[in-house]
Amino acid sequence: MDTKQMQQDAKDHLWMHFTRMGTYKKQDVPVITHGEGCYVYDTNGKKYIDGLAGLFTSQLGHGRKDIAKAIAEQTEKLGFFPIWSYAHPGAIELAKRIADYAPGDLNRVFFTSGGGEAVEAAWKLARQYFAEIGEPGRYKVIARNLAYHGTSFGALSINGGATIKGVFEPLVPGARHVENTGLYRSRHAVNCDNMEEFAEECALDIERAIEFEGPDTVAAVFLEPIQNVGGCLLPPEGYFKRIREICDKYGVLLVSDEVICAFGRLGYMFGCERFEYMPDIITCAKGITSGFVPMGAMITRDFLMEPFLDDDKIFLHGSTFGGHPVACAAALATLDAFEKENILENVRNNEALFKSELNKLTELPIVGEVRGAGYFYGIELVKDKATKQMFTEAESEAILFKFLSPRLYEEGLMCRTDDRGEPVVQLSPPLTAGPDEIREMVDILYRVISEAVEKVEALKAKKPEALSA
Amino acid sequence: MDTKQMQQDAKDHLWMHFTRMGTYKKQDVPVITHGEGCYVYDTNGKKYIDGLAGLFTSQLGHGRKDIAKAIAEQTEKLGFFPIWSYAHPGAIELAKRIADYAPGDLNRVFFTSGGGEAVEAAWKLARQYFAEIGEPGRYKVIARNLAYHGTSFGALSINGGATIKGVFEPLVPGARHVENTGLYRSRHAVNCDNMEEFAEECALDIERAIEFEGPDTVAAVFLEPIQNVGGCLLPPEGYFKRIREICDKYGVLLVSDEVICAFGRLGYMFGCERFEYMPDIITCAKGITSGFVPMGAMITRDFLMEPFLDDDKIFLHGSTFGGHPVACAAALATLDAFEKENILENVRNNEALFKSELNKLTELPIVGEVRGAGYFYGIELVKDKATKQMFTEAESEAILFKFLSPRLYEEGLMCRTDDRGEPVVQLSPPLTAGPDEIREMVDILYRVISEAVEKVEALKAKKPEALSA
Repeated sequence: MDTKQMQQDAKDHLWMHFTRMGTYKKQDVPVITHGEGCYVYDTNGKKYIDGLAGLFTSQLGHGRKDIAKAIAEQTEKLGFFPIWSYAHPGAIELAKRIADYAPGDLNRVFFTSGGGEAVEAAWKLARQYFAEIGEPGRYKVIARNLAYHGTSFGALSINGGATIKGVFEPLVPGARHVENTGLYRSRHAVNCDNMEEFAEECALDIERAIEFEGPDTVAAVFLEPIQNVGGCLLPPEGYFKRIREICDKYGVLLVSDEVICAFGRLGYMFGCERFEYMPDIITCAKGITSGFVPMGAMITRDFLMEPFLDDDKIFLHGSTFGGHPVACAAALATLDAFEKENILENVRNNEALFKSELNKLTELPIVGEVRGAGYFYGIELVKDKATKQMFTEAESEAILFKFLSPRLYEEGLMCRTDDRGEPVVQLSPPLTAGPDEIREMVDILYRVISEAVEKVEALKAKKPEALSA
Repeated sequence: MDTKQMQQDAKDHLWMHFTRMGTYKKQDVPVITHGEGCYVYDTNGKKYIDGLAGLFTSQLGHGRKDIAKAIAEQTEKLGFFPIWSYAHPGAIELAKRIADYAPGDLNRVFFTSGGGEAVEAAWKLARQYFAEIGEPGRYKVIARNLAYHGTSFGALSINGGATIKGVFEPLVPGARHVENTGLYRSRHAVNCDNMEEFAEECALDIERAIEFEGPDTVAAVFLEPIQNVGGCLLPPEGYFKRIREICDKYGVLLVSDEVICAFGRLGYMFGCERFEYMPDIITCAKGITSGFVPMGAMITRDFLMEPFLDDDKIFLHGSTFGGHPVACAAALATLDAFEKENILENVRNNEALFKSELNKLTELPIVGEVRGAGYFYGIELVKDKATKQMFTEAESEAILFKFLSPRLYEEGLMCRTDDRGEPVVQLSPPLTAGPDEIREMVDILYRVISEAVEKVEALKAKKPEALSA
């Protein structure tokens, strides 16, 4: 492998995603060559612990011979066929298996090639469903501040973060946004005496939005079980119960966007199980194949298919790669591994340890809060813990992107530093990780965040040179 | 395999794409189990010739051990990693190789999971590009009547067919539509004395749309080299040369949507090569991996990346599965096979035979026109050839869907019957097909369309019972 030529080719031809390409004028593109378990390796042979499971995706870790075998066998047998008026055994078996795992009568499975496509499918289904049952005025969706649901135009419109939407306006009409459940910085929290009131206030935000828009115009509410952007924002107890009541009251569909939270991330097959609510639609992707082949799915309750079972009716949606036979094989092999290796149990058994390890970070003066569940955590950084004072944009750039992000990488930890809300560091490792890997990740974080504390102290002492990494 | 249980599971759980699910109340779901070369087989052991390459996708045919091996090796090595600020060797190698194949300075490759996502990326890039260079008013796109570009909200908005859009309104603002180049039924053709005038008239439709909308508001024109919907609508000679001039005149980007036409479908790596025009962006998918793993790409000219090479600039777009390592491995193995097996030459060598075989169909009184190029053909059916009289909607339903479609399937030919424009039958086989497979497909078509002629004669003699299959 001629790594010099590879660097040149990367810089000349590969347009990376959500990446500041200008960075690589002066430095090399990091190139990952292989992986094994919770670890990946770069072209220099350097080893990293994959603290993000690729991108909340590699539930089973890397280097899986079992999945490779299943994929190869299916490729030789039937490597591609669409599910446009034909089916194939893998799509049928996987649909049945997902329906069995999913709660209640979430029985109908519409496959896609990824999470964004699942979200698109859900909004389209909501619109056509209401048109078919005689309520064509219902086209809007309600989602939450900062929440991320994808990047195609439909999903992008549902996103709650203006920073990744603004330049692409005008978007799909009809997306409205309410407060998220981020307790640490919530406007609502100050008016609430307890968590019950906080849950009620957050839920009422959605009811108010429905009332404000006009219930006859609202098709669906899109919520993640735990909201990713903002740094693993937990739902307060009772929140989803109230959301379900509100959706029922106004005849609005509840979509649980579980692209991250499904398939074991929270210790359950689906995030809604953990928080005990019954959505009308689940959107999922990523972990469904442990990332080995692109795939997503929209899972719906039976009543949503009813209008499409009349002889000439058709849900006017589909895609070439939805229900791809090789993706189905990867998903079936992944689910087999979940059962054989007790993946859900592993997450549940280690959750307490993971939390207690992470809580050590709160000793550090710039760690405002650690939150999350299962194998999905966010660590919010603050300039001053007592006052919850936030970093300025320039400080965030200096601390998060110019210092923490490269230092964590140097120390061999892959995780996410994100400032779409407040600055957070996120951990979301493969679900096969055990106590050793958890301690290793937290140790690196502790060490590097401790270094960042010094940078912050320098900032506070108004040493402007601390702003340059 | 318990096929009875499989049928029940399919009916209970699998929501198929663009499919009248009610059909399966009374009949079995067709289940395809395996494939070899140009053939696939169902659960009853029945053999079909795959006249549509799955869905314009399986360029190399089915049952490929070479691709299975490449995919399995990559899965074991690095089965998933995102290209969000990291890269991996396969993505780099594939980007370089695609850039080498693509004409001119189409050097920058942004990977996606499929064709719709590539179209979304292209519209988003067009919008952000113009914002970055100080022309934020350019957000609209122009596309053609009936043309299909995908089903996510952005791509859906670009589609030229109201039938698959209407129920999902309101869509992304800014998509406008002009006449396509379907000579057989064009409004323009009657006013033109020759093909040169026809090409000019069709091109002027785009210029008029740009002028009408205001050039400062138009970002891009989206065109397929040969338009699929409508039944393989060819560009008249000189058309794309004029389109390029018009785009240059108004500073509008030309996007060549080659999700179907790239990777050998027309005998060239890219459709724009065949028709000798230089687009600013190529969108592609399907054949890039011969369908073995979901993948797509947006290929752009160098100037489109320029504004994003400044230190802190970023194209605010990406997806989890874009540049998936296993998809890259499938694509690289596919391109290897293209070279080893002289796939492009096979298409070019057999095109004349394919056309002359298909032209035999024009002997039949309901075959209005056969058109296409390479391995991509449409056969337009008419009620009366002399007058080009069209079928009514009910007749089209009876002839196309209730008779031709099931009869072709019974006779072992998989192809597409489509009435989004006029009724057409489409052929688009694997690019590995040779003279024998071509003759076999056309023989079945000749036989079954001949039967349909009798149905049509009965219709003309006003025997209403002919309308029921």
